Amino acid sequence: MSDYIEQDGSGATVGSVAKRSFTFAEPDREMTLESGAALGPITLAYETCGTLNADKSNAVLILHALTGDAHVAGYHRPEDPKPGWWDSMVGPGKGIDTDRYFVICSNVLGSCVGTTGPSSINPATDRPYGGDFPVITITDIVRAQKQLVDHLGIEKLLCVVGGSVGGMQVLEWCARYPDMMVSAIPLATTTRHSAQAIAFNEVARQAIMTDSNWNSGDYYASDNPDMGLAVARMIGHITYLSDEAMGVKFGRKLQDRSALSFEFGGDFQVESYLRYQGKKFVERFDANSFLYITKAADYFDLARDYGAGSLKRAIARFKARFLVVSYTSDWLYPTYQSKEMVKAMKQNNLDVSFCEIKAKWGHDAFLLPGTRLDSLISGFLTGVGDDL
Amino acid sequence: MSDYIEQDGSGATVGSVAKRSFTFAEPDREMTLESGAALGPITLAYETCGTLNADKSNAVLILHALTGDAHVAGYHRPEDPKPGWWDSMVGPGKGIDTDRYFVICSNVLGSCVGTTGPSSINPATDRPYGGDFPVITITDIVRAQKQLVDHLGIEKLLCVVGGSVGGMQVLEWCARYPDMMVSAIPLATTTRHSAQAIAFNEVARQAIMTDSNWNSGDYYASDNPDMGLAVARMIGHITYLSDEAMGVKFGRKLQDRSALSFEFGGDFQVESYLRYQGKKFVERFDANSFLYITKAADYFDLARDYGAGSLKRAIARFKARFLVVSYTSDWLYPTYQSKEMVKAMKQNNLDVSFCEIKAKWGHDAFLLPGTRLDSLISGFLTGVGDDL
Repeated sequence: MSDYIEQDGSGATVGSVAKRSFTFAEPDREMTLESGAALGPITLAYETCGTLNADKSNAVLILHALTGDAHVAGYHRPEDPKPGWWDSMVGPGKGIDTDRYFVICSNVLGSCVGTTGPSSINPATDRPYGGDFPVITITDIVRAQKQLVDHLGIEKLLCVVGGSVGGMQVLEWCARYPDMMVSAIPLATTTRHSAQAIAFNEVARQAIMTDSNWNSGDYYASDNPDMGLAVARMIGHITYLSDEAMGVKFGRKLQDRSALSFEFGGDFQVESYLRYQGKKFVERFDANSFLYITKAADYFDLARDYGAGSLKRAIARFKARFLVVSYTSDWLYPTYQSKEMVKAMKQNNLDVSFCEIKAKWGHDAFLLPGTRLDSLISGFLTGVGDDL
Repeated sequence: MSDYIEQDGSGATVGSVAKRSFTFAEPDREMTLESGAALGPITLAYETCGTLNADKSNAVLILHALTGDAHVAGYHRPEDPKPGWWDSMVGPGKGIDTDRYFVICSNVLGSCVGTTGPSSINPATDRPYGGDFPVITITDIVRAQKQLVDHLGIEKLLCVVGGSVGGMQVLEWCARYPDMMVSAIPLATTTRHSAQAIAFNEVARQAIMTDSNWNSGDYYASDNPDMGLAVARMIGHITYLSDEAMGVKFGRKLQDRSALSFEFGGDFQVESYLRYQGKKFVERFDANSFLYITKAADYFDLARDYGAGSLKRAIARFKARFLVVSYTSDWLYPTYQSKEMVKAMKQNNLDVSFCEIKAKWGHDAFLLPGTRLDSLISGFLTGVGDDL
């Protein structure tokens, strides 16, 4: 493995992280997208943790959410301030135990962390795609991932797992390639966005697209639409936290002073927190990628794509064994949406376990350590492995 | 009365709407605001409906929400496309019956519909205040309203009533001038914003303040920050509707076509709706006023201002008889916040009726006809009048 590093026992991950990228080309070096547009060649940045066993039966594909990336766990360099985005779940002895499983995580198509996206160079023009990047769908994202899994020589994944927009990819995998996984774990997700979820995404997109720097997506040679992207991120952050969590975390606590400022600089800690989140985000993420991936999420509709409008019919294609998890305080993808999914799975006599975890932290709970999620997943994977 | 018009029986309001403005000056033509800054002279635009009785005991003061104005009911001209903002509630024979009550409604300080606000001319510079307008509070807004009520020669209001930010003004009136009203109706409101409510307001303000046209509030001689204000309004609109209401109203229905566009123009009806709301709003509202009034709402904290942090202690000042109303699907000011208020009223042995109305429409339900609100208010006011 390249870029292999070994961490010492600092309480963080001890194990191997292999950082790689894979470029693939369908006929004529292009992939035909769901929209009919052609895109290619496509590069996927991916990382693996753990070791693929001899019969290639221990691979777990992790699918990241909106702004995630391939770096799911561990450290690239000992001096890195933070490990991968799901380090609390993935590593030796953890919920997804890299001593037992071979973990694969790739950056999604349309993103900006190594995989082909709007900020990549368009080979036809030798300039970044910008607004010429075609609108992609969850289907396109998953079809690209399939190329990677084929490339790794894996015929059947032990599990596909992901939360939020990653959970949509899990469902798409199960519908499109039902014979390619033994099990699947859609977390804090939905089979399609509600009007409210679309509304939040659309307002976030409008914040970006009305930034005078956006320039129809063609901004890579000048200033980025950072202001718009920061506002978009702030909107997102509110939806990731529950009312209760914000109350516990911030309440009406003031920032740095005991009196109101009578100015617009931000009096409350929650204001400073959001501004900071917005500011930090623009340093690591591309505004166009935010537009394209939120659009893909809004378009995702399992019942429409695979069941002519019927979720039961769409899910009839599924063959995996399921663990579905939702959170009581997740108001972006509320539990009722997971229950609709579980109901359709049961109607199709699928083997499904469902757990609604009581947690006050809102949608983001699935990313936080200390919820019951790690033991749930670990137990589920052990059961799945034992039945092989 | 000036600008008096009489409507015929078209099913709309039949009655009188008097449109007036009142300019007042405290010593040296200025009012000292809560911040310590001086502002003045101050003009309040106000309207009245109905007739003040001989002993001036039938006056109902209506307090509008964030983007409302003095035009509460009826029509100014027969050709007006829409009546005042609460025409379903206010008029002859309606919930607030203008055959019986003399209704007063003024545009709040800081707004842009006739009352002094950031777009008004600063007498010190002969230019619009812009960003030099001082930060105002709900206290300042109510103190200005008090000048108007004094000017009208009314010593005791039969009722003060308002929803949302109007409800905050109701509570401020009861705390500051407890002897000036017989009764009060705070609707769909809160004694202080949660962190989540502050967060939504702050993101909306950031959308405005990061619009390159905003120019620290000094834009009246050039282009308005319409893009930012439209995004701010879109954010607001999401919080005014419930998830269920959006599902019923829009769901995933597509706009004008049966297929996805694979473009960013807005596929879903909910997207078009929000864009339309944003666009329409910038034609009637000033971006700076949005900043100042949301800030006043965020600052409002009854317990802090009147009870040294204790809501019970703050509400000990109240003397009015209360009708408190919340809505099941209001997630901006959820019922639990009204219940805290009602609990503190009961702890102080106040005469309080509380009703949580089952309605799926979210926060905006109080503005919609056909809820139980009109009969509740009408019955409450009749009872209050009978006990005089």
